[in-house]
Amino acid sequence: MLEIINSHRSIRKYKDKPLDPSILEKILEAGSRASTTGNMQVYSMIITTKKNVKEKLWEQHFRQDMVKQAPVVITFCADFNRFNKWCEQRKAVPGYDNFLSFFTAATDALLAAQNVALAAESFGLGICYLGTTVYNAGNIIEILQLPRYVVPVTTIVTGYPDEEPGMTDRLPQEGIVHSETYQNYCAEDIDRIYREKESSELTRQLLQENKKETLAQVFTDKRYTKKDNVAFSKALLSILEKQGFMNNAE
Amino acid sequence: MLEIINSHRSIRKYKDKPLDPSILEKILEAGSRASTTGNMQVYSMIITTKKNVKEKLWEQHFRQDMVKQAPVVITFCADFNRFNKWCEQRKAVPGYDNFLSFFTAATDALLAAQNVALAAESFGLGICYLGTTVYNAGNIIEILQLPRYVVPVTTIVTGYPDEEPGMTDRLPQEGIVHSETYQNYCAEDIDRIYREKESSELTRQLLQENKKETLAQVFTDKRYTKKDNVAFSKALLSILEKQGFMNNAE
Repeated sequence: MLEIINSHRSIRKYKDKPLDPSILEKILEAGSRASTTGNMQVYSMIITTKKNVKEKLWEQHFRQDMVKQAPVVITFCADFNRFNKWCEQRKAVPGYDNFLSFFTAATDALLAAQNVALAAESFGLGICYLGTTVYNAGNIIEILQLPRYVVPVTTIVTGYPDEEPGMTDRLPQEGIVHSETYQNYCAEDIDRIYREKESSELTRQLLQENKKETLAQVFTDKRYTKKDNVAFSKALLSILEKQGFMNNAE
Repeated sequence: MLEIINSHRSIRKYKDKPLDPSILEKILEAGSRASTTGNMQVYSMIITTKKNVKEKLWEQHFRQDMVKQAPVVITFCADFNRFNKWCEQRKAVPGYDNFLSFFTAATDALLAAQNVALAAESFGLGICYLGTTVYNAGNIIEILQLPRYVVPVTTIVTGYPDEEPGMTDRLPQEGIVHSETYQNYCAEDIDRIYREKESSELTRQLLQENKKETLAQVFTDKRYTKKDNVAFSKALLSILEKQGFMNNAE
């Protein structure tokens, strides 16, 4: 178990080889064993394998080729649609059209996603998460025909790896873990925590490619800009509204 | 791996036995190997073992005794504080004070949490998630001294199990998995998907205890009421505002 967890790397190139349906079934079953709030299971997994649907999703995921290449694309959704329908059929009045319920459902979906990722890796498959899912949630909702009370929160592509990338660097544990309460960082802490990352060969390449003075600028000015973040924030909040999750009044 | 994933059950009673620090370290390391957006690692894990801090957390988690009993309580936080400080020290202007950035960071935290949960279980430990984390995020922020740009999103308690509960029931896969696009449910689908759950002994007990006609009513009228959900939605949105994640304008 730890060996699989600790050897994770994201795979962005896949062989043209379909997944055995029985393996896919086991992977999805593993997803369904993750903890869910009150065992409500307020999430869904949408499995896309058809070329024409994958191509539409590929457009939304910034045309990253792995979306077309990988045999299986799994979109994980916060989903109160099924639960609400059940309530209504059982003389119960659901009160799940609010932000807390969205976050609860998103949590269910994300924990299931990580189980699916690890289960896939235990079969020798590669996986990659697509953060772009929430950037273009509105279009993905149309493509996958998601009804009200369903919002896509993340996507995993999976298949047989056609590359063997090295492990991704991580900050030292002192950068992520806090003992008892939060220990805020002074300037020296930040320098120390980021030292190894900043002095790597990958960083040197990124600075050169992006013509930037610091690695942090590669993030703020190129990869995750304020302009994009604000646009995607507005879009995501309006999707939550449209899908029925922002009725936060009695 | 699959065996551990598929035998998960939440543990709510713990032995009075501390965790070996080397095991805890391995579990946290497993957390840090989960995928994170752009490898920004915008999350933190706060490890609480001290009795007095655990008692304060216990109050916030609806006084569930496992919070006091379990030797280790891990609060997973969406955290842009460290990343923002780094940017500011490196002549970069961070644009991460918005809702998209909160959701990105929450995703990092939740995927790490599931790795931690599974790693703990691989050492024979029990775990339980505490959804109450987002209900009382404001008080948890005070107790754990979380600075601006840090929001707790989930909590795991872990330790040596002092109970052996059975597996929790799950809906059949057709209730969670959709092929190619979302297949919405008709009344018969809902009846079929919930049939086994509704006919279980557990459901019979819940109906009796709660004096309700349907299981759905136990959820809507007792466990997750509209009134609570609305109050917690407002509280969580105001915490996102207070912690600096709702500046969604250019």
